[in-house]
Amino acid sequence: MGTKKPSSTETKPLVGILTGSPSDLPVVEKAQEVLAGLGIRSELLVLSAHRTPERVTQYLEAAPKRGVEVFIACAGMAAHLAGAVAAQTLLPVIGVPLSNGGLAGLDALLATVQMPPGIPVATVAVDGAKNAAYLAARILAIKHAGISEKLAADLADQRKRYDEPNKPRVR
Amino acid sequence: MGTKKPSSTETKPLVGILTGSPSDLPVVEKAQEVLAGLGIRSELLVLSAHRTPERVTQYLEAAPKRGVEVFIACAGMAAHLAGAVAAQTLLPVIGVPLSNGGLAGLDALLATVQMPPGIPVATVAVDGAKNAAYLAARILAIKHAGISEKLAADLADQRKRYDEPNKPRVR
Amino acid sequence: MGTKKPSSTETKPLVGILTGSPSDLPVVEKAQEVLAGLGIRSELLVLSAHRTPERVTQYLEAAPKRGVEVFIACAGMAAHLAGAVAAQTLLPVIGVPLSNGGLAGLDALLATVQMPPGIPVATVAVDGAKNAAYLAARILAIKHAGISEKLAADLADQRKRYDEPNKPRVR
Amino acid sequence: MGTKKPSSTETKPLVGILTGSPSDLPVVEKAQEVLAGLGIRSELLVLSAHRTPERVTQYLEAAPKRGVEVFIACAGMAAHLAGAVAAQTLLPVIGVPLSNGGLAGLDALLATVQMPPGIPVATVAVDGAKNAAYLAARILAIKHAGISEKLAADLADQRKRYDEPNKPRVR
Amino acid sequence: MGTKKPSSTETKPLVGILTGSPSDLPVVEKAQEVLAGLGIRSELLVLSAHRTPERVTQYLEAAPKRGVEVFIACAGMAAHLAGAVAAQTLLPVIGVPLSNGGLAGLDALLATVQMPPGIPVATVAVDGAKNAAYLAARILAIKHAGISEKLAADLADQRKRYDEPNKPRVR
Amino acid sequence: MGTKKPSSTETKPLVGILTGSPSDLPVVEKAQEVLAGLGIRSELLVLSAHRTPERVTQYLEAAPKRGVEVFIACAGMAAHLAGAVAAQTLLPVIGVPLSNGGLAGLDALLATVQMPPGIPVATVAVDGAKNAAYLAARILAIKHAGISEKLAADLADQRKRYDEPNKPRVR
Amino acid sequence: MGTKKPSSTETKPLVGILTGSPSDLPVVEKAQEVLAGLGIRSELLVLSAHRTPERVTQYLEAAPKRGVEVFIACAGMAAHLAGAVAAQTLLPVIGVPLSNGGLAGLDALLATVQMPPGIPVATVAVDGAKNAAYLAARILAIKHAGISEKLAADLADQRKRYDEPNKPRVR
Amino acid sequence: MGTKKPSSTETKPLVGILTGSPSDLPVVEKAQEVLAGLGIRSELLVLSAHRTPERVTQYLEAAPKRGVEVFIACAGMAAHLAGAVAAQTLLPVIGVPLSNGGLAGLDALLATVQMPPGIPVATVAVDGAKNAAYLAARILAIKHAGISEKLAADLADQRKRYDEPNKPRVR
Repeated sequence: MGTKKPSSTETKPLVGILTGSPSDLPVVEKAQEVLAGLGIRSELLVLSAHRTPERVTQYLEAAPKRGVEVFIACAGMAAHLAGAVAAQTLLPVIGVPLSNGGLAGLDALLATVQMPPGIPVATVAVDGAKNAAYLAARILAIKHAGISEKLAADLADQRKRYDEPNKPRVR
Repeated sequence: MGTKKPSSTETKPLVGILTGSPSDLPVVEKAQEVLAGLGIRSELLVLSAHRTPERVTQYLEAAPKRGVEVFIACAGMAAHLAGAVAAQTLLPVIGVPLSNGGLAGLDALLATVQMPPGIPVATVAVDGAKNAAYLAARILAIKHAGISEKLAADLADQRKRYDEPNKPRVR
Repeated sequence: MGTKKPSSTETKPLVGILTGSPSDLPVVEKAQEVLAGLGIRSELLVLSAHRTPERVTQYLEAAPKRGVEVFIACAGMAAHLAGAVAAQTLLPVIGVPLSNGGLAGLDALLATVQMPPGIPVATVAVDGAKNAAYLAARILAIKHAGISEKLAADLADQRKRYDEPNKPRVR
Repeated sequence: MGTKKPSSTETKPLVGILTGSPSDLPVVEKAQEVLAGLGIRSELLVLSAHRTPERVTQYLEAAPKRGVEVFIACAGMAAHLAGAVAAQTLLPVIGVPLSNGGLAGLDALLATVQMPPGIPVATVAVDGAKNAAYLAARILAIKHAGISEKLAADLADQRKRYDEPNKPRVR
Repeated sequence: MGTKKPSSTETKPLVGILTGSPSDLPVVEKAQEVLAGLGIRSELLVLSAHRTPERVTQYLEAAPKRGVEVFIACAGMAAHLAGAVAAQTLLPVIGVPLSNGGLAGLDALLATVQMPPGIPVATVAVDGAKNAAYLAARILAIKHAGISEKLAADLADQRKRYDEPNKPRVR
Repeated sequence: MGTKKPSSTETKPLVGILTGSPSDLPVVEKAQEVLAGLGIRSELLVLSAHRTPERVTQYLEAAPKRGVEVFIACAGMAAHLAGAVAAQTLLPVIGVPLSNGGLAGLDALLATVQMPPGIPVATVAVDGAKNAAYLAARILAIKHAGISEKLAADLADQRKRYDEPNKPRVR
Repeated sequence: MGTKKPSSTETKPLVGILTGSPSDLPVVEKAQEVLAGLGIRSELLVLSAHRTPERVTQYLEAAPKRGVEVFIACAGMAAHLAGAVAAQTLLPVIGVPLSNGGLAGLDALLATVQMPPGIPVATVAVDGAKNAAYLAARILAIKHAGISEKLAADLADQRKRYDEPNKPRVR
Repeated sequence: MGTKKPSSTETKPLVGILTGSPSDLPVVEKAQEVLAGLGIRSELLVLSAHRTPERVTQYLEAAPKRGVEVFIACAGMAAHLAGAVAAQTLLPVIGVPLSNGGLAGLDALLATVQMPPGIPVATVAVDGAKNAAYLAARILAIKHAGISEKLAADLADQRKRYDEPNKPRVR
């Protein structure tokens, strides 16, 4: 795994992460953590499809010019944010349904995934911020050479942790 | 029932009805039919929160100036339209979830009703275009004197149809 | 924002809020709080569609004469209250399904929203007392001039709170 | 099974069956058919909790005086009828949720069964008009001697139909 | 309410309550409490449709001879007990679905209510032991004169508690 | 695959298949067909947990003496049959939930699978009569030598049908 | 119950238990406990269908050679493990859906039970590790003489615990 | 929109589409149609996670060497295919849940989306083959210059079709 991790202070963010409410940050920050671990710089903003729609629009116009190539949008309940983002960009949009209502996030999952043809949202599991990051990394890796190796190293790591302690418990 | 119905060709629309897809029209037109029956003029447009968001914005700015006082927004599946409308106006917004997906409209119901505080959508039943119209009429009636009488007459009519043929079937 | 808030002790209640059980009050009182913040006077009563139906009927006859123009009805589980109110008045009725059963309020949502044609209930989210108040305010605002400005000021306030602290977290 | 079936033209109805809409009659009439087969006279009316509430109240006051001892109430969607009946009588009330909405009657089942303490509805399966009749018969049988024998004969009949043709299909 | 409550030590149980597991007793005992409050004597046993089916059969044969006229059967998850009881008696059987699984009792509700024609279970709400008792009382009241008055007094009591403290909260 | 298929007319049934209603036979017969294809003799009976419980008991006592080693029980809606069988035998019981209600068999699935500890039902998919047969075959194969080879041949067959026509469709 | 329990240190495991994550062990170990109580030796491994698929394949090839005759596979959420095991063996596979997501395990139940024809998974209740063990024991008992007696003794034990303390609570 | 569409016969497939059963082809072929319309070459194979797992593995190793950069995997019911693919590649995997069971595809949606961390599946709506193609195109567009323009042209086209016929229906 000899890839040299690019100094993260020099690089520009490749991933723009939006979330609908400050209270979602503990879940959403896990996406940024995974991306950082894979050497991918990201930026995280609290923006609402309903309260600050024009701020969403401004951000989606500006971000690609600064180098953002993938968006991650997180929202609960009626969960319109990912769809609103997908309607205003042609970049890939990953949606993370959040479980902050009483229906275990099933409502947010359906509101995120069921987009009309032409405006897809790449949906991950409820509260699946980590996998949103891994999916962003896989998408970026088809273009950015080093990321694929990072992903392979990370996966090998996870497998090792599974295999090592695993003696059959006979009883 | 002496109220004189205002000639509908002279009046301006009081209700703006938006629906996400031309295929929804058979359901949505029932709202317009009920409103016409109550002497309330309305306009119906096909506009999509995802495909034509700027057209939605333009319409929501123009319509109140022409006299529209209540919006009805109809959409299925992820069903973002009513919420997008409610986020861009301060007029009352009635949402009609449509059952055009496989989940009997339960997905659209949740995506329509679960709005964040400050941006309410007055939700009616799945495919409930008729009741959206009746609700619009009740809202308008607190301001426009004649509508209340129309509503009372309509209700009396419906009750009569219930009562008349209703002899107990004894067996 | 120059509107002068009418002294709330002088005005009569414009909104009548009913709830099915004293144990719902902590949720339901949020509606009254939001209305007060918008300068709209309201009255809140515990009345049950099943235990005190004749009291409900008496209240619905008396309230409009004292100036009430919108009703908010809150109930959980079988949640018949909003429907019973809507069947006995022609004023707009807002229904708040409560989550006091084990099904996260989905049962109450369906029992509130699925009314027969002609007897609509403007349903908001489960436990959505705040949005019931905002919806009542939007309805009243089409008639009462000052309320619209209050709503606009409140919304601007909420947006500001969203925008201010929101520096992108780059990592 | 020597009980002499009382001539049904002479007896007074023991069961009052209410249903919310004329379109429900094909389902609801099965209850009356089962009751007739058990020699129990019944009367069936179309009455709506929302459209004709005062007619419901009048009926519930008059029926017991004419000899009705059990009510069966059938309704779909928000399904308030059985609850409204149970709130206005102390006789046993059997509720039949109907599947005339898109949710296979699950909505009506929940709206029928989840009544507050003190106002019970004896709920049977969705569209379960037959079992509503059998339940009414079991209830009446604790008081009226002949019904129990009719029930036993009917059950024996059904069992025989199960047993007769039932040779194991060996293959 | 001058009815003289029959001394409960002299009377025989009119209601037989069965429950599938000792851990259900805190919920199920509420049925017995309500019945006692209405002057109706009952007996409560832990019997399982799956573990002790022959004990269930023995009990169902013996109980009616000792005067039991209504059964209440409580069970969670697959919830077969009420159905098994209804299949072995012609007395009215009330089923109480319990919420002791992870699905809020919806599984138990469906397993209790969906019986085949001829074998009805009078189902009440999930964990609705109180209403099972009130339903048993209503059923017994059509035969036993004093119970109806007890029910009326109890209901009047509950209504009074609703009405007394209920001054409108104006704000 | 040189195993010699035992002449099915000579062998005794190894699998006893029970189903709750004659109307289920078209679905249930598929189990018998799969078993016959694997050279396993079976017998199929219509028996009801509720209508003919004593017949179920008699059968479960007699069948093992004639050589039956696995039971398959099929039922819809409240779906008590498989559980009732599992409570009266120590042989493996496979449950097939049927979709003959309005809830797509989800109700029957839950009523079949959620058995108390000690009384397991090996549940397959809704209407999964074929897989019930394959599961029975796998269970019998740990004891009866030839069945394992039959299963392997059948699987190889199915794989071949998958592989043969499968040229990538490039477009 | 005079069967001599085989010394568990001498015997080889008959049951192979796989689970998708170390965090599932507290639930899964109950299966091993029940099996040990029935004198059946088992081995328990943490293996993932997604992270260590080749380890799963290796294990499934090796285990039958060492004497394993039944597999138990436990997994939550997307819950692919039991299906992956069933696709690579012809031995009986028991699936235990785990409730480690937010949907009470209903997701895992469906992902475990709904296998294509020819690849059955014998599914037990959500978190039903105990019943998975009892089911494995019933399957093994058709071949291994002593196990059936152990099962009978265990069941008798459980019944006794039900019967003993069970005096009717009369009130 | 002057981009010159690359001759599709010269290019190699960029997208590999897998589906679990030949009967899914009518739904799945829509993905290939959309991709062709965007000038993106794809290949479509029927491969099963359960019946032909080794064929899946072979394909996933070979395809990237021939130029495939994104996979689309379609499956219904237990729906393991997309997860199995994601576990064996580091390329982006798009999952299409199919509605070929009785639960409207909700089961397949959950089985597709709920993957463990590190193995993401970019899930689209039930039967959402079109959006799977659009999502693949968005992903490829971050690397392949011409695709972005194709997407923009396609979107503009769709919007035009929305706008043109859309005169307000005033009534």
